[in-house]
Amino acid sequence: MEPQKDKTPLGEAVLSQVAELLRRHRLVEGLVSRQEMPRHGLVEGLIHKLHLVELQKTLDTLHPADIAYVLEALPLDERLIVWDLVKAEHGGAVLLEVSDAVRETLIAHMEKDELVAATENLDTDEIADLAPDLPSAVMEDVFRSLSAEEREQLRSAMSYPEGTVGALMDFDMISIRDDITIEVVLRYLRRLDEMPDHTDQLFVVDRAGALKGLLPVNRLLVTGPDTVVTAVMEGEPTRFRPADQAQDVAQAFERYDLVSAAVVDTSDRLIGRVTVNTVMDYIREETDSDMLSAGGLREDEDLFASVWKSVRNRWAWLAINLVTAFVASRVIGLFENSISKLVALAALMPIIAGISGNSGNQTITMIVRALALGQITATNARKLFAKEIGVSVLNGLIWGGVVGLFAFFIYHSWQLGLVMTGAMVLALLLAAVMGVAIPLAMQKLGRDPALGASVMITAITDSGGFFIFLGLATVFLV
Amino acid sequence: MEPQKDKTPLGEAVLSQVAELLRRHRLVEGLVSRQEMPRHGLVEGLIHKLHLVELQKTLDTLHPADIAYVLEALPLDERLIVWDLVKAEHGGAVLLEVSDAVRETLIAHMEKDELVAATENLDTDEIADLAPDLPSAVMEDVFRSLSAEEREQLRSAMSYPEGTVGALMDFDMISIRDDITIEVVLRYLRRLDEMPDHTDQLFVVDRAGALKGLLPVNRLLVTGPDTVVTAVMEGEPTRFRPADQAQDVAQAFERYDLVSAAVVDTSDRLIGRVTVNTVMDYIREETDSDMLSAGGLREDEDLFASVWKSVRNRWAWLAINLVTAFVASRVIGLFENSISKLVALAALMPIIAGISGNSGNQTITMIVRALALGQITATNARKLFAKEIGVSVLNGLIWGGVVGLFAFFIYHSWQLGLVMTGAMVLALLLAAVMGVAIPLAMQKLGRDPALGASVMITAITDSGGFFIFLGLATVFLV
Repeated sequence: MEPQKDKTPLGEAVLSQVAELLRRHRLVEGLVSRQEMPRHGLVEGLIHKLHLVELQKTLDTLHPADIAYVLEALPLDERLIVWDLVKAEHGGAVLLEVSDAVRETLIAHMEKDELVAATENLDTDEIADLAPDLPSAVMEDVFRSLSAEEREQLRSAMSYPEGTVGALMDFDMISIRDDITIEVVLRYLRRLDEMPDHTDQLFVVDRAGALKGLLPVNRLLVTGPDTVVTAVMEGEPTRFRPADQAQDVAQAFERYDLVSAAVVDTSDRLIGRVTVNTVMDYIREETDSDMLSAGGLREDEDLFASVWKSVRNRWAWLAINLVTAFVASRVIGLFENSISKLVALAALMPIIAGISGNSGNQTITMIVRALALGQITATNARKLFAKEIGVSVLNGLIWGGVVGLFAFFIYHSWQLGLVMTGAMVLALLLAAVMGVAIPLAMQKLGRDPALGASVMITAITDSGGFFIFLGLATVFLV
Repeated sequence: MEPQKDKTPLGEAVLSQVAELLRRHRLVEGLVSRQEMPRHGLVEGLIHKLHLVELQKTLDTLHPADIAYVLEALPLDERLIVWDLVKAEHGGAVLLEVSDAVRETLIAHMEKDELVAATENLDTDEIADLAPDLPSAVMEDVFRSLSAEEREQLRSAMSYPEGTVGALMDFDMISIRDDITIEVVLRYLRRLDEMPDHTDQLFVVDRAGALKGLLPVNRLLVTGPDTVVTAVMEGEPTRFRPADQAQDVAQAFERYDLVSAAVVDTSDRLIGRVTVNTVMDYIREETDSDMLSAGGLREDEDLFASVWKSVRNRWAWLAINLVTAFVASRVIGLFENSISKLVALAALMPIIAGISGNSGNQTITMIVRALALGQITATNARKLFAKEIGVSVLNGLIWGGVVGLFAFFIYHSWQLGLVMTGAMVLALLLAAVMGVAIPLAMQKLGRDPALGASVMITAITDSGGFFIFLGLATVFLV
């Protein structure tokens, strides 16, 4: 598949071209339905078709990934018009490229035989990626259409859970025996029509199929034909097992600048490979889902999902935050007596809670990142605590001083100012300790520290901040 | 450079091995300095050296990227012990791999000639990456040691700002003339010792150096020797200019699964290439810095930076938040009279502000993401507004109902409950409108919508939430 001819990936230019064609198409449609004049029906039907033909032409020049981009950016009704024009030819490839949410809307509008046809040009590892979204009747038909070897591959690819190497693996590797000469290798390669994408190296195996080494394709070009493979291959290559964590592979690709890597079974037999494009997609999806969950979205949301779907997607996070807000509210409720005596407390308390929440989130961002990079060990965790406590005390004195002055200038009470400063120092200390402790504890409990740590710290600094400030005020001022 | 032999990238195992060797080394050092017995000095000096030798041996087996990982995870003093052991051999490669913050600490502890030596094994595009961190005296020496062509490359690479294709480009491409035969190409390649990393294709140029096409290396293997290059090359290849946005290249690599791509000047002459490993690093850095700035950190922080450095790094965000907190505090101050009459308001007001802040952040996360993917156009922006308003009204009724009931059960006033519900609907509406409007406006002003949008929405929902709730309460209850 050829990328489109221009120098940059398809931008808004083509998107608005498609939108314009759709607009014209719908304009005519609108005319037809408004006037309901059968006499003009034929002419308008023709114009209508003309626009669709033009649209089809535009779409035909696009790479499936670009078609996917167009589909994502269109509202549902227009998305389906475009989809009808492309699904026959590019169906499978486009379904692989769109997001989960949009894929759902596309598959919902396809017949069973269209879906089966869409999988026909796909590799077994690609079918496995689509499988969770396909109706079981479709999957049965697909299974029947495959060869025995492909069925085995599909079954194996589907058996590995998301987030493992097995789920990223494909079966498009070229393997060669270690005891043959370069000439034999070259002859073998010439018999293939084309080599699979991302074939930067051939995998060298012994008689039993066990991985012995790697032969970079580039080395084939500069080696004499009589050399034996073992003499020029790279021994002891990096290898992965299907059950390994996908993030370990991603790290290996990033650190060692790999283009492809071998996947072997427990007896070291080559069973597949992972390529850099899959790894790049995986990394993108991971950071994407981190960003979404940090923002309180359960999953990727179709930009034009129904209101009801969006409400459900955002439900959990709002519910959790409501509970923590109720708790904070009750903490304030404990001090209603003090507030009614000194109403300035009500105006000042959000400052303490807010700043300590921000500071705690800074600490958590640092720690979560260091944990993701594997930089935190038992030895250096204590140093980190010490450092964060130092930062919070220094910040507490600086910002506590500022808010103390603020309180003094507004309410002309130096006692109130001092209580603000003291509360700020304590609240920032709390934020620092919890900001280190929460992600470390979550990691220890085997949970993802990126998930929910921010909600927890905010809950603690809110309730804690209110409690510290109102408590100090009650003791010293009221 | 060979990745280390095991199946996964260097994990905590090696990190703790290094830490253990360092601990033993320092134990002996501690003994020496505490006892100050010159008689034993020699023996302890020997043990001391023994541990360092063992450490050196461990480090020698590591890939520079793995050494970088170890350095990042060590406190400053231990980091420098390890650095002393590796800098002679791997200096340049490791400096390229570590984060900016850690690089600074390493360069600060190197002599001028060590720094010059470290750049000796680097390509010009890699030297350009280090250049901003190197003292100018070092750069002068480096310049003098280069050939005229390399100087030109270095100057050109340093002239492109971060975030452009020029900054990602390297000069390691192999270009061939379009009118020669495959046999000539193969003969030319055989004369090279080795082909550069990530050479998946040769760049085909005409007599004037203008890019004409691409010849995939794999196709070389399956093509007859007498074929002319033009007959088998891929014409009209994807190409970039050095001033293009780096994120456009990243998108092209992701969409079209590229391994390398050509960079041309304004007369279409080939001047460099971009490879997938550089693109992957760029994507990682981008998402990293998005995460850091979303968490309120100005830049990447050395895990063991001094307290003072960390305070400075986190300064700006806290200062901004302090200002918005002061504003919110003054909004509450406007209603002190109402609060002193009905102190329940003080306990309930953070609920409205908090939930609308969360909801606004959900909307912003969606919109910023869609903007980054180029999915928002003038046409569909209106639909998005409509959708988000629908979501916020529905959420307002649901969650407003819940908080209304909460208020009723705690304070036994149905009027208070109704005001809570009404305030929630209005506050969520405000959050939805601003959640769409802020990132769109920032985009229009040419600013990065990911930067600061979250701070702005929180400022607005805080002050706005307090104002709406206390205002409604003042009108209807007090």
